[in-house]
Amino acid sequence: MTPLSTKEIESHLESLEGWSYNEDAIHTTLEFNDFKDAFSAMTRIAFEAEAQQHHPNWFNVYNTLEISLSTHDAGGVTEKDFKMAKTIESIVSEN
Amino acid sequence: MTPLSTKEIESHLESLEGWSYNEDAIHTTLEFNDFKDAFSAMTRIAFEAEAQQHHPNWFNVYNTLEISLSTHDAGGVTEKDFKMAKTIESIVSEN
Repeated sequence: MTPLSTKEIESHLESLEGWSYNEDAIHTTLEFNDFKDAFSAMTRIAFEAEAQQHHPNWFNVYNTLEISLSTHDAGGVTEKDFKMAKTIESIVSEN
Repeated sequence: MTPLSTKEIESHLESLEGWSYNEDAIHTTLEFNDFKDAFSAMTRIAFEAEAQQHHPNWFNVYNTLEISLSTHDAGGVTEKDFKMAKTIESIVSEN
């Protein structure tokens, strides 16, 4: 899988809400009511990440979740990252 | 709850394996076989964190999990952190 160009990444980012691109990855920060809500979302994301065999870099403190996506093998951001970002967006918007 | 002194922290650390103290928190890095194993441990830790009402700062990438514990309200490391660290150690050693 080849990495997307900056132009392609910026175009893809327009279809997402609250994601940005820097340091060869796309990032978002999500906020939940509390830890249980944050970890519930993480659990749903974990199942999808495993199914897509594409795993996030993520950092959680209480109700806050920071997620970064990149495709290590490709050395940049690929379609796989945007597929995963879309999945995350749809999981979070259901709550 | 009052923060422990550096001496007390160092003494407590001796009863744990693979934890260190810096920047007003205690830290460990755990490695698992794969993402499923890492997230399974996270799930067990999450339930305990919620039960103890003491939540970790944690960062996961695939099979690696970095955990930091501190007691925000006390502005340092307290007995609560070591209780949680012991819990994490016992969860991980069961696997």
